Amino acid sequence: MPNLYIALVHHPVVNKCGERITAAVTNLDLHDISRAAKTYGVRAFYVVTPLSDQKALVQKIVDHWIKGKGAVYNPKRRDALELITIMDSIDEAVDHVCKIERYRPLTVATCARPGIKNIGFDQLREMLQSGRPYLLLFGTAWGFTEELMTGTDYLLAPIQANTGYNHLSVRSAVSIILDRLLGNSR
Amino acid sequence: MPNLYIALVHHPVVNKCGERITAAVTNLDLHDISRAAKTYGVRAFYVVTPLSDQKALVQKIVDHWIKGKGAVYNPKRRDALELITIMDSIDEAVDHVCKIERYRPLTVATCARPGIKNIGFDQLREMLQSGRPYLLLFGTAWGFTEELMTGTDYLLAPIQANTGYNHLSVRSAVSIILDRLLGNSR
Repeated sequence: MPNLYIALVHHPVVNKCGERITAAVTNLDLHDISRAAKTYGVRAFYVVTPLSDQKALVQKIVDHWIKGKGAVYNPKRRDALELITIMDSIDEAVDHVCKIERYRPLTVATCARPGIKNIGFDQLREMLQSGRPYLLLFGTAWGFTEELMTGTDYLLAPIQANTGYNHLSVRSAVSIILDRLLGNSR
Repeated sequence: MPNLYIALVHHPVVNKCGERITAAVTNLDLHDISRAAKTYGVRAFYVVTPLSDQKALVQKIVDHWIKGKGAVYNPKRRDALELITIMDSIDEAVDHVCKIERYRPLTVATCARPGIKNIGFDQLREMLQSGRPYLLLFGTAWGFTEELMTGTDYLLAPIQANTGYNHLSVRSAVSIILDRLLGNSR
């Protein structure tokens, strides 16, 4: 069984000008990505931000849906949002997986630009079959810093179609990548 | 070349209790779905609502990104949102495709529940290779009315993984379905 963890990273990422920033959390990212994660059997969904006010905001949203009125209104949403754990940093998320699995997860960055270290979707899909834990990282804003990408174990190939345009939202990218890595045959 | 049109339908759809309603437009649906449509080479993205205030809202958002400050701030977003055309009804969208293509498109409803008329993803992917126009319909809120689904030419199989949970957002569902129908091999 694939043993996949995912993280939505708000720092370190870059802005439009390539400067290192901390991005704000987007409410619908929490919903869409946790629903996709639950659909495809992802083990945990880490929301990574070092900012305490952003962490409090995420916790408030999650609590509404898993303990508050949202849980009664829509229990399916509760099942999805329960996958969320808030983390200060990617390192903290890696440590969290280590504690659960007793193995350090292999880290895989995703990116919309092709890179030299890229591994393909079929290759990663096969690697996941080993049962070894993997942590797949998704960047917000204009994506990860170069530094972050050179520090991960792998870099996943970008999603490309025949159009030359690949400006998907992170919500779309997560959904497509989980389907490619964990989806059933059609 | 596949000749695919998509429509995001806000009426007729059902609410949580199965009652026929008109759903409100969600801003991020416009962005995420037009970006996915542009990435996969979809011909047009119809936003279907009979409500004049909702049509005005969609037009205002689209104008901001294709003619207003948004077009200068992010031209890639402009390229995506240019795919949007607002329609009163599914029939009006069908007529619009007829005018462009001089053929009536075959209509395909999508649904999270399995049905007896379902066609598979590989089957529809192959049918699209004929170059004949197809109009793929996505429902908002709790999905289409039964009546609508029995009236389309085809009903696409639901996205399913091995978990038994398939409560994806419409943004995620559109992204995954376009990748399955039009995406490159991995």
